[in-house]
Amino acid sequence: MGTSPSFDVLRPPLHAWLSRLFPIHRALMGPGVRESLDILADMMPGLHRHHVKTGQKVLDWVVPDEWHIKGASIIHESGQKIVDYHDNPLHVIGYAAPVDTTLDREELLPHLQTHPTQDDVIPYVTSYYKRQWAFCMTGKQKAALPPGRYHVKIDSVFVKGQLDFADLIIPGESRDEILLSTYICHPSLANDNLSGVVVMAGIAAWLRALPTRHYTYRLVLVPETIGAIAYLAKTITSLKKHVRAGFVLSCLGDEGGYSYIASRHENTLADQIAEHAGKHHAGSIKKYSFLLRGSDERQYGAPGVDLPLVTLCRSKYGEFPEYHSSADNLSFVTAKGLQGGFDFVRTCLHLLEANKIYAPTILGEPQLGRRGLYPDLSVINSGASIQTLVDFLAYTDGQTSLLSIAEKLGVPALALEPIAKQLLQHNLLRTIHSPRKK
Amino acid sequence: MGTSPSFDVLRPPLHAWLSRLFPIHRALMGPGVRESLDILADMMPGLHRHHVKTGQKVLDWVVPDEWHIKGASIIHESGQKIVDYHDNPLHVIGYAAPVDTTLDREELLPHLQTHPTQDDVIPYVTSYYKRQWAFCMTGKQKAALPPGRYHVKIDSVFVKGQLDFADLIIPGESRDEILLSTYICHPSLANDNLSGVVVMAGIAAWLRALPTRHYTYRLVLVPETIGAIAYLAKTITSLKKHVRAGFVLSCLGDEGGYSYIASRHENTLADQIAEHAGKHHAGSIKKYSFLLRGSDERQYGAPGVDLPLVTLCRSKYGEFPEYHSSADNLSFVTAKGLQGGFDFVRTCLHLLEANKIYAPTILGEPQLGRRGLYPDLSVINSGASIQTLVDFLAYTDGQTSLLSIAEKLGVPALALEPIAKQLLQHNLLRTIHSPRKK
Amino acid sequence: MGTSPSFDVLRPPLHAWLSRLFPIHRALMGPGVRESLDILADMMPGLHRHHVKTGQKVLDWVVPDEWHIKGASIIHESGQKIVDYHDNPLHVIGYAAPVDTTLDREELLPHLQTHPTQDDVIPYVTSYYKRQWAFCMTGKQKAALPPGRYHVKIDSVFVKGQLDFADLIIPGESRDEILLSTYICHPSLANDNLSGVVVMAGIAAWLRALPTRHYTYRLVLVPETIGAIAYLAKTITSLKKHVRAGFVLSCLGDEGGYSYIASRHENTLADQIAEHAGKHHAGSIKKYSFLLRGSDERQYGAPGVDLPLVTLCRSKYGEFPEYHSSADNLSFVTAKGLQGGFDFVRTCLHLLEANKIYAPTILGEPQLGRRGLYPDLSVINSGASIQTLVDFLAYTDGQTSLLSIAEKLGVPALALEPIAKQLLQHNLLRTIHSPRKK
Repeated sequence: MGTSPSFDVLRPPLHAWLSRLFPIHRALMGPGVRESLDILADMMPGLHRHHVKTGQKVLDWVVPDEWHIKGASIIHESGQKIVDYHDNPLHVIGYAAPVDTTLDREELLPHLQTHPTQDDVIPYVTSYYKRQWAFCMTGKQKAALPPGRYHVKIDSVFVKGQLDFADLIIPGESRDEILLSTYICHPSLANDNLSGVVVMAGIAAWLRALPTRHYTYRLVLVPETIGAIAYLAKTITSLKKHVRAGFVLSCLGDEGGYSYIASRHENTLADQIAEHAGKHHAGSIKKYSFLLRGSDERQYGAPGVDLPLVTLCRSKYGEFPEYHSSADNLSFVTAKGLQGGFDFVRTCLHLLEANKIYAPTILGEPQLGRRGLYPDLSVINSGASIQTLVDFLAYTDGQTSLLSIAEKLGVPALALEPIAKQLLQHNLLRTIHSPRKK
Repeated sequence: MGTSPSFDVLRPPLHAWLSRLFPIHRALMGPGVRESLDILADMMPGLHRHHVKTGQKVLDWVVPDEWHIKGASIIHESGQKIVDYHDNPLHVIGYAAPVDTTLDREELLPHLQTHPTQDDVIPYVTSYYKRQWAFCMTGKQKAALPPGRYHVKIDSVFVKGQLDFADLIIPGESRDEILLSTYICHPSLANDNLSGVVVMAGIAAWLRALPTRHYTYRLVLVPETIGAIAYLAKTITSLKKHVRAGFVLSCLGDEGGYSYIASRHENTLADQIAEHAGKHHAGSIKKYSFLLRGSDERQYGAPGVDLPLVTLCRSKYGEFPEYHSSADNLSFVTAKGLQGGFDFVRTCLHLLEANKIYAPTILGEPQLGRRGLYPDLSVINSGASIQTLVDFLAYTDGQTSLLSIAEKLGVPALALEPIAKQLLQHNLLRTIHSPRKK
Repeated sequence: MGTSPSFDVLRPPLHAWLSRLFPIHRALMGPGVRESLDILADMMPGLHRHHVKTGQKVLDWVVPDEWHIKGASIIHESGQKIVDYHDNPLHVIGYAAPVDTTLDREELLPHLQTHPTQDDVIPYVTSYYKRQWAFCMTGKQKAALPPGRYHVKIDSVFVKGQLDFADLIIPGESRDEILLSTYICHPSLANDNLSGVVVMAGIAAWLRALPTRHYTYRLVLVPETIGAIAYLAKTITSLKKHVRAGFVLSCLGDEGGYSYIASRHENTLADQIAEHAGKHHAGSIKKYSFLLRGSDERQYGAPGVDLPLVTLCRSKYGEFPEYHSSADNLSFVTAKGLQGGFDFVRTCLHLLEANKIYAPTILGEPQLGRRGLYPDLSVINSGASIQTLVDFLAYTDGQTSLLSIAEKLGVPALALEPIAKQLLQHNLLRTIHSPRKK
C-alpha cells in the first residue's frame, strides 16, 4: 500500500486502494473526510491539507457545521430491526438531524426515502443545508413494513468544525498549470466517486515518474460543491492566471464507454483533448453538453470563474442505474474499469504534454534524402512509408498545434510525438510554445 | 375608433381599422395618401407628418407629380359599360395618363392588363415613371369583349404636389433605436399592405402602454420605394448611428404561416430575433433570402445604407395567389390573421426588450438554497424543477445574450425573462447592456 | 510554330507544340532541359533564362551534377537486345550511374524496375540523389528474360553543370502578381507534364493578347522540386510580397474531369477561384486535400513559404493508370484534352481579372428606370428580366467580391462581368480594389 515504488506507475493498484477507502463513513465534513485524506496523503506524498472553519464565508456560501453520527436505526414494536446505520451508511440521509422517538407506521412513512425506479437498492440522499431527519431503504423494505409502532433513533450531532480539503502541486518546466479536481465527500459509493479519487492518486504517481513535465500539475481533493467553492475562494486569482486546461475526475471505474462533459462554450483546449483522446485512444467518446453538468465543473466553469475545464467519466454520473444507490459498490467498479479510467486520464495528460506548436527552421521542403529520412529511389508510391512524417512537416507552420495536425491527418496525436522528436533532433523544426487556452 | 384607451392593447381592432382605410383611393402621391395619414394620425397620436415637393431630388431619385383621378371607364358602342374606376380603383393602372377617345377593339387590346395566371381577378399595375394609359380587368372580361368601337376615358391629371409620409418616435430609456417601417401607397389591397399599416398602428398603442421601454422606437409610414428613399434622405445619418434592429411590416393579415426576408448577410440582430420568434413563439417560420426582397428592405438594406433590418410577413408578398389582385380584399384578410401578425411583431419587439446581456455578481454558483431558490433535499433529479434557472445562471457570463442562451437551452427566450428578473431581484445578476447590431 | 500571331490565342496549337517537345530526352538537369527551354523561348517571347551551378546551396538543398547519357542497353549472350535507351528514354532510371559489365540473369534482376500493377508498360523511375544503376522495362519483358549472361551498359556521365529554369513576367496595371508554375524535367511523358508546359505557353500568348491586365503575371518553368526550390531561393521575398494567387499547372492534357489540390488550409483566393471555375465553367470539379500534394505545391505551399496557391489538373497525377509510365504518351494526351485544360486555366485567370470589389456610388437603390435599365410598367414579375443586375447591385457593398456575389446568386461569376461594366458606365458603381489573399 501507499506510494512505494514497488508498484507499476502504469498499472497502480487502484481497486485495492478503492477497497481500503470504501468502508469509511464520509460526509460533507467531519471525521470520515479527515480519515480518508490521511490515507490519501500516504498514497500521494506531498499532499497539502487545508481547511476552512464552520461559519466562515467562502464566496457566496457559508461553511456549515460538521456532522458526527454514531449510529441510527428503526426498530418495530415487535423488536424487528428494520435498518441499522452500521449495516450501510446510506440508510440515513447525509446531515440527518438527531431523533429519538416512537411513532406509528403512518407517521414514519414521510421520513422514508426510496429509489424512484429500483425496488432493491438503498438511495443516497442528503440534506446539507436544512435540518431534517430521514431514513433510506429499499422499496421492498418499505413495502413490507408491518403496521404498528416504531422506535426511530438517529444518534447524530452538529458541531462547529471545519471543511477539509487538500491539494498536491507537481511542478513542471512551465508555470502554466493543468488542474485536476475530484471530490471526496460521498460515503460508501464506489464509482461516484472513489473511482475518481483513486484514479487521481494513480495519476499523481505517474506524473511524478515522468522524466520531464512541461506543465505544472495541480491535483485537488475537495468535498463536492462547497469544497470546490472554498478552493476557488483561496486560489482563484492564481488559477485564472495559470490554468491552461483542467479536468474534473468523476465516475471512472465502471466498464462502460468513455464520456466527457463539455465546457460552457465547448471551445477549450480541454474539450479538444478529451474529444481526441476518446476518438483516437479509447475508440470513441460520448460528449455531454454543459447543460448536463452536475459535479464541480459547475463551480470551475461558472461564469466569472471560467476555467477551461471538462469533466471526464466512463459512464457519466446520473446515466448508470447504480448511480447514487447502494448498487454503486465494490462489485460494480472493477480493476479493469479503473485501469481504463486511469489510462483515459493519463492519455489526456500525455496529449497535453505532446501538444506543442512547431515551426519550420528552413524554407521549402528540407532535403530529407541526405538526412537518411527519404527513400533513395523514386518509384510510384515510394513516399508512402514516410507519408505521415512529410505530412506533419507540411503542416508545422508555427500556427497549427500537433493536435490540430493530427486531426487534419486523421491519425492519433500521440503517433506524431516521436516524429516531432525525430525532426527536432534533425533541427528541422523548432518548438514555438504550447497552445494557450482559448 | 382612434386610440381611446377603451380597446385592449393586446387585441386592437385591427380589422375595423383596416376596413376604414380600405375604400380610400391611394396612389404613390396625392389626396388618398393624405386622407389615409389623417386617419392614421388619429389612431397613432403623435404621428409627425413630412413631405417633399414634386421635382425635388431625394438621393438618386426625383419626386414625381401627384396623380389626381376623378373617374375612368370603358364603354362599348352598344352602351355597355365594361369597367368603371368607381367600382374598383384597380381598373386603372396607377398614374395612368388621361385619355378620352374612341377606338376599335383591336386598338384597345394593347391597353388592357389582365392577371397572368388567374382569369377572374383584376391585377394591380402601375406606371409611375412613364406616362401611359391602360386599364385592368379580369381575363374573363377581356375575353368577352365584343367587336366594335369603344369609348375610353381616364379623367386624370398630373399636378405639382408633394410626397407625403409620416413617423412616430416613441422614446425609451436608451437612444438606441428600433426601426419599424411600412408602406401606405397601395390602393384597395388589404394584405398588401393595409395589414402592415394597421399592425403598426396596433404596435404603437402597445408600445405606449408599456411601463418602460429600453429602446426608442421609430415607426415610419411611407409610400413604397420613393417614400423610403425620401425618408432615408432626411434621416440616414441618425438612423445609421442609432438603429440597432429594424423591421419592415408587410402582408401580415392573412392566415398563412409566418416568414421573414433575411438581411443581406443574414447576420443581424433582427434576423436572429425573427428566427427565434418564429420558431419558439409562432411554431415555425420560413426564411427567405435577401435575393427575394421586394419591399422597402431594398432601400433600408441597400449597400451603403446597411440598416440591420428584416421584413416580417405572414404569407410573403408574391407568394400568395391573391397578391397584387382584386382578390387581396377584406375577405382574404381576417381579424384572426391580423391578430396573429400583430402578435408576431409584438413578440419580436418583446424579445428585443428582453434580450439583455447579464453578468454574475458573485463568483461560483450562488447558494440558491438560502435564498429559497433550491430544493432542500438532494435526491435523484431533485434539481429538475429549477433546471432552467440554474442553466440560465450557468450561461450569464457577460458575453452571451439572453436570446443566445435561450437558443442554447432550447427554450423560448421570453420564458427566461421572468427568471432574469427574479435573479436581478436577488442581486445574483447585473445587466451589462443590450447587444449591439453586428 | 512559335508565337507568330497567325494562331488563335483561344485555340493555340497545343498538341503540335507538345509533339515537338515530346521526343527530347529531358532529365532534372542537362542538355534536354536546355533544348526544351530553347524551344519554349520561341513559343513564349520574353522568356528569361536562369541557372544555378552544381554544388551551390539553394535553401536546404544542394544542386547536383548534370547527367549526360549517350546510350544504354541490355544484350543477352544470344545477341538479343532486350532494351535500348534510344527506343525509349524511360528504359533507364533518371540519373542512372554508368555501368559496363556482364552478369547472370539473377544478378541482373535486382537492377530491373517494372510497373507495380501493369505488365505492359515501362515505369518512370529516378534516383537523383543516390548513385545507382537500374533499367526499366515492362513486366512481360522481365518475365521473358532467358537464363544466361547479359551485357549491360549505361553510357552516362555526371558533370559539373547547372540547374536551368526560366520565367516570363507579363506586366499588368498592378504590381500584385499571379504566379503560374510548371515543371519541365520529365522525359517523354506527355500528360505529366508536357501538357502543363504547353498550356502555360498557350496562356502566355492569351495573356499578351489581352487589351488590359489588372495583375502582373509570373510564368515559371522549373525542374520539379529542386527547380522550384532554386526559384524560391532567388525570388521568395518578392513573391511573398506580391503574389495574390498562384497555380501549379500539371497533367492538363487528358480527357478526364477537372481537379485541383487545395492549399494547406483550403482558404486562399486560388482555392475559391478553382472551385468556382470548376463548378460553373467546367460543370464540376474534384477537390483533393493538400495531404495528396505531390508536385511543386509542396514547395510553394510549404510552411514559411505559404504562397496562396493550388495545383490545377484534369486527371490528377497519380490518379490515372498511365501515370509515370510509357502509356503517358501522345495518344493519351489529345488536342481536345489540352484545349479543355487550357480553357480551365484561362477561366481561372479570367475570374481573377473579373473579381473586383465594387461599392455603390449613391445611397439607396438607383433609379434604374430613368437610365433605361428598368421596365416602365410594374406588373407581376416585371423585374425578372433584370433580376441578376439588381441582385448584383444589392450586394456590391464595398466588401463582397464579385466572386462571392456570384456564389451567393448561384450564377457564373463571368456572367456578372458585363453587368459590372454596364453599371460602371452608368457611374452606379465604383471599383474598390481586387481582393487580397487571405
